[in-house]
Amino acid sequence: MLQPRVGYQNLKDSYLFFGINQKIEAYRNHHPGAHLYRMGIGDVSLPLCDAVIRALHQAVDDQASRDHFHGYMPECGAPFLREAIARFYQDRDLPVTADEVFVSSGASDELGDLLDLFDVSSTALIMEPAYPAYVDANIMAGRKMVYLTAGPENDFLPLPDDRLQADLIYLCSPNNPTGAVCTCGHLQAWVDWANDRGAVILFDAAYEAFVSEDLPRSIFEIPGAESCAIEICSLSKTAGFTGTRLGYTVMPRKLVRQGMNLREMWIRNRTTKTNGVSYILQRGGAAVFTEEGQRQIYENIRVYKENARVLMRALDQAGIRYWGGKNAPYIWMKCPDGMGSWECFDLLLNEIQVVGTPGAGFGACGEGYFRLSTFGDPADTREAAGRLLKLWGKTT
Amino acid sequence: MLQPRVGYQNLKDSYLFFGINQKIEAYRNHHPGAHLYRMGIGDVSLPLCDAVIRALHQAVDDQASRDHFHGYMPECGAPFLREAIARFYQDRDLPVTADEVFVSSGASDELGDLLDLFDVSSTALIMEPAYPAYVDANIMAGRKMVYLTAGPENDFLPLPDDRLQADLIYLCSPNNPTGAVCTCGHLQAWVDWANDRGAVILFDAAYEAFVSEDLPRSIFEIPGAESCAIEICSLSKTAGFTGTRLGYTVMPRKLVRQGMNLREMWIRNRTTKTNGVSYILQRGGAAVFTEEGQRQIYENIRVYKENARVLMRALDQAGIRYWGGKNAPYIWMKCPDGMGSWECFDLLLNEIQVVGTPGAGFGACGEGYFRLSTFGDPADTREAAGRLLKLWGKTT
Repeated sequence: MLQPRVGYQNLKDSYLFFGINQKIEAYRNHHPGAHLYRMGIGDVSLPLCDAVIRALHQAVDDQASRDHFHGYMPECGAPFLREAIARFYQDRDLPVTADEVFVSSGASDELGDLLDLFDVSSTALIMEPAYPAYVDANIMAGRKMVYLTAGPENDFLPLPDDRLQADLIYLCSPNNPTGAVCTCGHLQAWVDWANDRGAVILFDAAYEAFVSEDLPRSIFEIPGAESCAIEICSLSKTAGFTGTRLGYTVMPRKLVRQGMNLREMWIRNRTTKTNGVSYILQRGGAAVFTEEGQRQIYENIRVYKENARVLMRALDQAGIRYWGGKNAPYIWMKCPDGMGSWECFDLLLNEIQVVGTPGAGFGACGEGYFRLSTFGDPADTREAAGRLLKLWGKTT
Repeated sequence: MLQPRVGYQNLKDSYLFFGINQKIEAYRNHHPGAHLYRMGIGDVSLPLCDAVIRALHQAVDDQASRDHFHGYMPECGAPFLREAIARFYQDRDLPVTADEVFVSSGASDELGDLLDLFDVSSTALIMEPAYPAYVDANIMAGRKMVYLTAGPENDFLPLPDDRLQADLIYLCSPNNPTGAVCTCGHLQAWVDWANDRGAVILFDAAYEAFVSEDLPRSIFEIPGAESCAIEICSLSKTAGFTGTRLGYTVMPRKLVRQGMNLREMWIRNRTTKTNGVSYILQRGGAAVFTEEGQRQIYENIRVYKENARVLMRALDQAGIRYWGGKNAPYIWMKCPDGMGSWECFDLLLNEIQVVGTPGAGFGACGEGYFRLSTFGDPADTREAAGRLLKLWGKTT
């Protein structure tokens, strides 16, 4: 008799965003036609930029032509895209080479797939509140987990200590959901800790493009990271690819554990378990790394940063405490009046039709917090900010 | 210290197609500008059909428009595509419903990802010669494997017997590499065997569109399959999506093992470990299932079937024994003169510049055989057939 993986039985009942969607659907059934102000799931609202659209159309035309048609792509990524991404690092004086870059279908997919490299006996460290997929993917695999709690006491940026024992460290900066951004000092502490113990850091850099102050955007800015870190990146938030799908991963040659070179294992994994990423999408992705593409994506990012300012101003005026928003597309707010996260969710949905994400969905220590995304439509965001202020403001 | 998966250390040195590509590269370095007749790796040569191209362009335009932009897609597939695929089954009187259809990035990716559902203690059964990724993905995972040998004695279609013990059955029909196609009787024997023992069949139907005689194209044509089989399909060969990427999987509601519903587990897996497949590609995929799309893809399939006829005629004239080619895009040929597979590869590459695939790359029992793909350019295929006949023909 086939034995399914029992880890699945240890999962909690439903995935966070699935639960939110069910509540929204129920609300809509009772209020047909109601407009919702969606500051919840981190989906973008602005279309792809011109440079990407042109590249996608051109690639579709290639697929229509006998002379320019592309069949199977190299499993680890098309050279034109791997090289463009390597240059993107090299332009910041980070010595990443094209063969250390792996093209993926997105950070979410990649974070799940990468677990294939590690024995199930390895312990994963999650800093909560955390993106729920980190936890669930490891529960499914049957992996042991340890948790570090992030909170106001450490500015939502926990540091390692000598008692901590873990092999696989999830580190997300700028952080989802708290918006906290690691300093070089923070990252150096984790890199040193990982190198001392032979641990590996999975550095989720999906929001690096939102760093505007002088803070690290890549873990490879930190000396020693090339022997302990894998950086997982995405064009989802950087360039609006949430529904178009494309990401990339940097796995340095120097990353070796128990005599096994993880980059070589990953090449073997990709060549065995995939047939590469769509030629069309890779052409679209390459356009992001052109001068024109960079200029255009930052025009969109500026819109989202303006959304953040609008929401932060409303929370400031209402006297509500929050973190993030400056170098991250998320605002992590303390629910006012001692409310619970889901209580706050229901209140905002039912009273002002604003949809956010309950902090408790990111781990128990997220209870009493609430995440607002800044990826919404600008007009909706202004209206939502006004409604928040009207609901909670000391003056209306 | 982090422990990488030791299974990777048990892999053989290099993946088949990687090895072939290295030999080709070496040949090209010595013979710059030489034209090669590529009947090797199963890549297609004809561009995407008009209906698909139009749908892809339209979807790219959607991604450029604020009103029609698509962000995150449902993880298990867009309803429009899941429904189109379900109708494709229903039109053949197979009661597949849209929520049993899962959109994937392709059969290769999916066959790797699906292993996530099964405990590592489950034993996998591989019928060799086999697509090498089946074997390697299970070695990486550290899973025990048993092998059944296919050969001329069973027309390359082995049947189960009572002594056999396995939990996970890989079944590929039309077969890669042998081109053998299971009859209903064959499939029924495997379905009954799997249901009796609580095994699960992974039915790789990537080549179903090439069945032109009265043979099963889906395992769900067989009574009882809905409680023991997962069908993995691809648009790669059906519609030329090798470099565009899209596939789908049918996982029936009735598939339950040890009290765990595999379809529900798979929904949980996809919602946790992916963010869905590109909107653009799903629109392109949906066009395949329109009346116009079906007509156009079969025009391309007819070209490949004509390639098969040209190659089979040459082998017939040369008196070389082969299997497949009729209801499958592969011809599985016995190497003449007692040659080994790689010996045959080197001979054809060096003497007549024809690239095929050594049978030994599909398992030890493939030694002495050679695979010809019919996906090549028609003019190249005619020339290759002529060269094969000149090399081996009794009359020139």
